[in-house]
Amino acid sequence: MTDLNETTLTDAVLARFADTPDPRLKQIVTAFARHLHAFVREVEPTFDEWSRGIDFLTRTGQMCSDKRQEFILLSDVLGVSMLVDAINNRQPAGATETTVLGPFFVEGAPEVANGGDISGGASGEKLHVSGQVSSVGGTPLPGAVVEVWHSDAEGFYDVQRPGQTEPSSRARLRADADGRFDFWSTQPTSYPIPHDGPVGELLSATGRHPYRPAHVHFMISAPGHETLVTHVFVAGDDYLDTDPVFGVKRSLVRDYAQHPAGEGTDGRAMPEPWRSLHYDFALKPSAA
Amino acid sequence: MTDLNETTLTDAVLARFADTPDPRLKQIVTAFARHLHAFVREVEPTFDEWSRGIDFLTRTGQMCSDKRQEFILLSDVLGVSMLVDAINNRQPAGATETTVLGPFFVEGAPEVANGGDISGGASGEKLHVSGQVSSVGGTPLPGAVVEVWHSDAEGFYDVQRPGQTEPSSRARLRADADGRFDFWSTQPTSYPIPHDGPVGELLSATGRHPYRPAHVHFMISAPGHETLVTHVFVAGDDYLDTDPVFGVKRSLVRDYAQHPAGEGTDGRAMPEPWRSLHYDFALKPSAA
Repeated sequence: MTDLNETTLTDAVLARFADTPDPRLKQIVTAFARHLHAFVREVEPTFDEWSRGIDFLTRTGQMCSDKRQEFILLSDVLGVSMLVDAINNRQPAGATETTVLGPFFVEGAPEVANGGDISGGASGEKLHVSGQVSSVGGTPLPGAVVEVWHSDAEGFYDVQRPGQTEPSSRARLRADADGRFDFWSTQPTSYPIPHDGPVGELLSATGRHPYRPAHVHFMISAPGHETLVTHVFVAGDDYLDTDPVFGVKRSLVRDYAQHPAGEGTDGRAMPEPWRSLHYDFALKPSAA
Repeated sequence: MTDLNETTLTDAVLARFADTPDPRLKQIVTAFARHLHAFVREVEPTFDEWSRGIDFLTRTGQMCSDKRQEFILLSDVLGVSMLVDAINNRQPAGATETTVLGPFFVEGAPEVANGGDISGGASGEKLHVSGQVSSVGGTPLPGAVVEVWHSDAEGFYDVQRPGQTEPSSRARLRADADGRFDFWSTQPTSYPIPHDGPVGELLSATGRHPYRPAHVHFMISAPGHETLVTHVFVAGDDYLDTDPVFGVKRSLVRDYAQHPAGEGTDGRAMPEPWRSLHYDFALKPSAA
């Protein structure tokens, strides 16, 4: 019989996974137990601290519902989601960088023609967005599918507004023969991640705020290429350096240019000041 | 602006906890994030694997209720509960070793006099248990409070039997002037930890069984000493080497001696074969 004590316990736990039939599962559970024990050995939790940890994880699970995923949020604020994103998106030079999908993507967004308005009636400063989709190296990708979604002037996504059943500030566009697309919407704003649960407690107890810097989400797909999931952030936002989910990369920050009232990018009359964003996206070819 | 990528991300996450007001919390969250990132960097999970991990943790939280604590069970089967126990119970030579409290301790167990029967009518082979409680070094501890509880012949604790409202196989005794106690009950059996939830899935997927080797729980307290929480296991049990919660220590395994029908330890007539256990407990003096 193995005599289990503080010295021998970790090896005994790792050995207990030796008969795991699936080699990948064996690798994952063994590594998880090893790193978890290393954490416990480093901090030497009291029983009370261990108990508070159990309680935190329990409440995190119990906050999850069909509308809320508190463990993904925990993964986000610990930088794990972005680390998994980085590991799974090692990009060749020149490819547009990736960032997290986030919880507000919805399948089946309205199809909007280039030049159309995707705001769905959301109020706010008018914004014109244009871009070109290419393969790394510069070959345009005609017909690329461009999914876009963003927060409104009050920091809400359509799916967060109780009672709203029609989509707003989201669309599915298709790049033209040159890989170009453009649409009208409204300027996005920074907004807090849900912070009325255990993750909010963690942020508060560690002196962190919940505000994501303003951005527009893009998910762009084209045949023969890996689907690109990313944001384009608004230059000058107060929260660029302290995004709670660690999603900001320098290459994804752009000037959302301010324009006086007058004439829009596409010649239309603009009675109020407005903004414009241009971003060119480069997709990574799929592995053969 | 920090440019967050696979290389810089972990340091950026750790730096984000720099302003945590409570230094102990800062130490814990920083260490947790560091070890968690090391785990992710080692196994390089795919998005699907990450997503299955999120789902596992979510279901673990949602299995918890006022009658079930699946995250404690997860801590148990990963050896974390016993590691925390070991860290918090570094014992001087000669002190009885500790093991986990488990989920079946109940406050307010019936007070039973020495020599009494604690079985509460549970069926099974009769068992006489005796012991002496001393301080490390051998001084007896008169009046020490001895809480005992154990499974019945079918592997259930009283609190697990639907509809049972009266306690059985549990009691609170008081050591006599020599620190001695004894009681009658029934032989405990091995039993499975709850395995119809995510923790059961983990055991099954990793080729592990859920059976704890048979044992009697003891929680012993005396003035001027640290409360001792431990089990005494039944020598020869099939599961001693593979306890799913890693609770077995060699010094806690004892012969539950078998006796033929005839006369009991205390002179009573025993119409059936019976067993006896004797164990002497040595408590660690409290820090001054």
